Amino acid sequence: MHALVNLIRRATPSNILSRHTLLRSLSISSAQTATWAPERRTDLSRLTDGDLDAIRQCVCDDTASSAAAFITDAHELQAFNTDWMHRYIGTSPLCVRPQRTEQVAALLTYCQQRRLAVTPQGGNTGLVGGSVPVHDEIILSTSRMNRVLHWEPQTGTVTVEAGAVLQAVDAYCGQHGYRFPLDLGAKGSCQIGGNVATHASGSRFLRYGSLRGRVTGMEVVLADGTVLDLGLGRALRKDNTGYDLKQWFIGSEGTLGVVTKVSVACAPAPAAVHTALLGLRRDFNAVLALSRRAQHQLGEILYALEFMDREAVTLLERQQSGASVGNPLAHQPDCGFYVLLETGGGVAEHDRARLESFLGQAMDDGLVLDGVLAQDQSQSEALWRMREGLSEAVSRAGPMTFKYDLSLPPSTYYQVVEQTRQRLQTTGDAMQVVSWGHLGDGNVHLNVVAPTCDRRLQAALEPWVYAWVARHGGSVSAEHGIGQMKAGCVQYSQSAAAIEKMRALKRMLDPYGILNPYKLFDA
Amino acid sequence: MHALVNLIRRATPSNILSRHTLLRSLSISSAQTATWAPERRTDLSRLTDGDLDAIRQCVCDDTASSAAAFITDAHELQAFNTDWMHRYIGTSPLCVRPQRTEQVAALLTYCQQRRLAVTPQGGNTGLVGGSVPVHDEIILSTSRMNRVLHWEPQTGTVTVEAGAVLQAVDAYCGQHGYRFPLDLGAKGSCQIGGNVATHASGSRFLRYGSLRGRVTGMEVVLADGTVLDLGLGRALRKDNTGYDLKQWFIGSEGTLGVVTKVSVACAPAPAAVHTALLGLRRDFNAVLALSRRAQHQLGEILYALEFMDREAVTLLERQQSGASVGNPLAHQPDCGFYVLLETGGGVAEHDRARLESFLGQAMDDGLVLDGVLAQDQSQSEALWRMREGLSEAVSRAGPMTFKYDLSLPPSTYYQVVEQTRQRLQTTGDAMQVVSWGHLGDGNVHLNVVAPTCDRRLQAALEPWVYAWVARHGGSVSAEHGIGQMKAGCVQYSQSAAAIEKMRALKRMLDPYGILNPYKLFDA
Repeated sequence: MHALVNLIRRATPSNILSRHTLLRSLSISSAQTATWAPERRTDLSRLTDGDLDAIRQCVCDDTASSAAAFITDAHELQAFNTDWMHRYIGTSPLCVRPQRTEQVAALLTYCQQRRLAVTPQGGNTGLVGGSVPVHDEIILSTSRMNRVLHWEPQTGTVTVEAGAVLQAVDAYCGQHGYRFPLDLGAKGSCQIGGNVATHASGSRFLRYGSLRGRVTGMEVVLADGTVLDLGLGRALRKDNTGYDLKQWFIGSEGTLGVVTKVSVACAPAPAAVHTALLGLRRDFNAVLALSRRAQHQLGEILYALEFMDREAVTLLERQQSGASVGNPLAHQPDCGFYVLLETGGGVAEHDRARLESFLGQAMDDGLVLDGVLAQDQSQSEALWRMREGLSEAVSRAGPMTFKYDLSLPPSTYYQVVEQTRQRLQTTGDAMQVVSWGHLGDGNVHLNVVAPTCDRRLQAALEPWVYAWVARHGGSVSAEHGIGQMKAGCVQYSQSAAAIEKMRALKRMLDPYGILNPYKLFDA
Repeated sequence: MHALVNLIRRATPSNILSRHTLLRSLSISSAQTATWAPERRTDLSRLTDGDLDAIRQCVCDDTASSAAAFITDAHELQAFNTDWMHRYIGTSPLCVRPQRTEQVAALLTYCQQRRLAVTPQGGNTGLVGGSVPVHDEIILSTSRMNRVLHWEPQTGTVTVEAGAVLQAVDAYCGQHGYRFPLDLGAKGSCQIGGNVATHASGSRFLRYGSLRGRVTGMEVVLADGTVLDLGLGRALRKDNTGYDLKQWFIGSEGTLGVVTKVSVACAPAPAAVHTALLGLRRDFNAVLALSRRAQHQLGEILYALEFMDREAVTLLERQQSGASVGNPLAHQPDCGFYVLLETGGGVAEHDRARLESFLGQAMDDGLVLDGVLAQDQSQSEALWRMREGLSEAVSRAGPMTFKYDLSLPPSTYYQVVEQTRQRLQTTGDAMQVVSWGHLGDGNVHLNVVAPTCDRRLQAALEPWVYAWVARHGGSVSAEHGIGQMKAGCVQYSQSAAAIEKMRALKRMLDPYGILNPYKLFDA
């Protein structure tokens, strides 16, 4: 048991760049650009000088606001045209950044009349190219609509504009003793509107569930400029008056409307948080057994249950010169898998005793080889940085990386990683297949880092991965969505009949297809 | 503090009839029939003998199954034509009870071709007349599709047919150490398909959230007979592959399709449950303060937070000759409000100590006048029977009862009750305005029991109640839905633009309007 209460010796303060910083610091490599490029739709108009003047009128209050709200400078546009992975790069000549719903409505009214395509963009931290244009779509950035509008103290409900940044909103809720029910690695840049539009989930899903049950109000602007107030501000937890239209837009990836405001029911913040990192031997059945036990024995205090494989942690260690990565179990060579586990509860001593009892038993039974328990918040944050740094680490690791965000039944959760390794016959450092994920909800992130820009690799992986997942009853997108990357891949997880109904809803709400074209099933 | 650990002296074994029993034992009073009766639609066909033969072929495997699957006997039909409150009584000449999805599909294919209307019916325990025909719609009962199909032990996901009864499914999950995330007073009769189709919630909502985040798979049959498999069986917690069509049908009250199978993510059952009944003085601010405190101090172990006013409990006591009602605080005349509070956690001693500390502080601060803590499961059940018996009690109390299921912001949660009393100028026993609700999620049940069948009462209440709720930012249906009772009232909680989009989805999925007509906004 002594290892469990070890100090984390190599905790790092903050050596991982935020996604925002990373976006600016990486150079754009042509090798990273999209391989999939649909033809530009001929039914969509091209921007004229007259359009530019008219749109400027829609989104600018006056000449002074023009510089921030209306961007046509090629250099400035680059960041808005380029996705976080530098893989999908559009050629939009215009990015608008309105500050009010009426401006969004005026813009869309005009664009639908003129058949001009629009790509809504939040923090631009998505991993499937969903928030950048494919061709010359106008970029509608919500980044200047970022106010917290209301806090309801009795119910813990926060109402914000779409562009409010997740981390800032979580901090705001924290001042009131609440937690925002969502946490992501990209929290420093991603925006609530984008989170809702993409049905983001992340590591708090296990405790707080899906945004579908937490979004209590929404304001959305449709393609024709109609503003729908869907219970915004009232922010009622229960409302069974007709069909719940909010659900149409949650996870629609900007293809059905532009979310402009959101109300979300938060949860009282736990008074005590405990974070542990556990090392397990290379037997995924042990990981599954530990997961089952944690869910039953820790029950209501279990907040997060994250998984990393040895290869993922090794990649991080190599890239960040070992010592700074903050893996306190680096001295245990037998660890094949790592589990990051967090509890949140009201009474620290109780939670700690319960967690130690759980961990002690898991060690006695041989499920866990070794582990550490963070002694304070900074150590806890260091453990989370290790987990949250993985996505950036693989993006920096090679000239080509392939990221798959899969949901799978428990029995095949790790099989997909092993099968991918086998298929690619990885040897030594040449090709790295690494994985991590949200163990508590069946979501695994499979990543392939290639040593060279070899297009044959992509052909070997796609659609093989998608077909494998479909065969094993999984989903080809657990939380990242479809975007450009998986456009045309929805059929691996949805029936033709279901996709036909999706298309019908799209036609109903956006008959001219101006909203975020070439994405989802619009390939 | 001593009162808190008192034994509950008057706990009753089971003196409250199940809804199912009640349905059979009450006589149908014409005074109770619906006041709202739309014209029969002329575009809908009437059943012919030829239709009867064809439909029998659709839903019966052989002659032997015909008696159970195909009901035309007037006496037998009565129970299917009559809603639980005996307020809405249809005149359907046919109830079918298929056993397989293909039979449902064949039936709907035929009915759409012939323009025959169909009313899906689950346990028929709804409170807004949604599950019985308005005129001669064919009743499609799911009661013979009631199997548990699959249990996934790693994720605690249960897959059932639509007609599985809630209590039975919860018991099944209990055998595996899990809890179904829904609990209702009608659990002995209501069916999972109906629960999902009406987006039922109840007292576990506070802990497990909305079904929208818990339904992981669904099979639904559309009006044209198309069978949609929406992730059924895969039962993945996360799946962001396109629009989430499951959400269309959750809460659609049988107007968009017939739910035939459902997968639901359950939660590990708490090892220890503590139930307390608290008496508070007549100051609703004290109730709100207690609610806030409970949510923060009990945090992750808080499972339910229910509210009853003195008038509701008095009505129950009078009706059930006092002693049998099981109100252990009956000796406290100063109680104006009661709060039923339940915790669920992993370690009994910890939870109990925490609950007692919370209650002790609330009593010391004068928030709580008196309280009892159930000492075992049977006492806990007795407290719940008191709360769950209220709905039936008001239905039995007078020749006319009006039930309103409202969501309101905390500040007006109880104002609506007081304002209703004031409006009706109730005196003594003449008219009883009583209320209870789910305090933790802003859902209040307002009930008016009238001493005589006076139609003017309804005119005094409606639409006044709905307009009052709309003015105060509430919802006219928190959890019961719209059905017949509130058909045409959706506009009090939804904008015209939103209702137009709902109608558009309805036209898209059910162009001939054969599914559950005259309900929702189809008034």
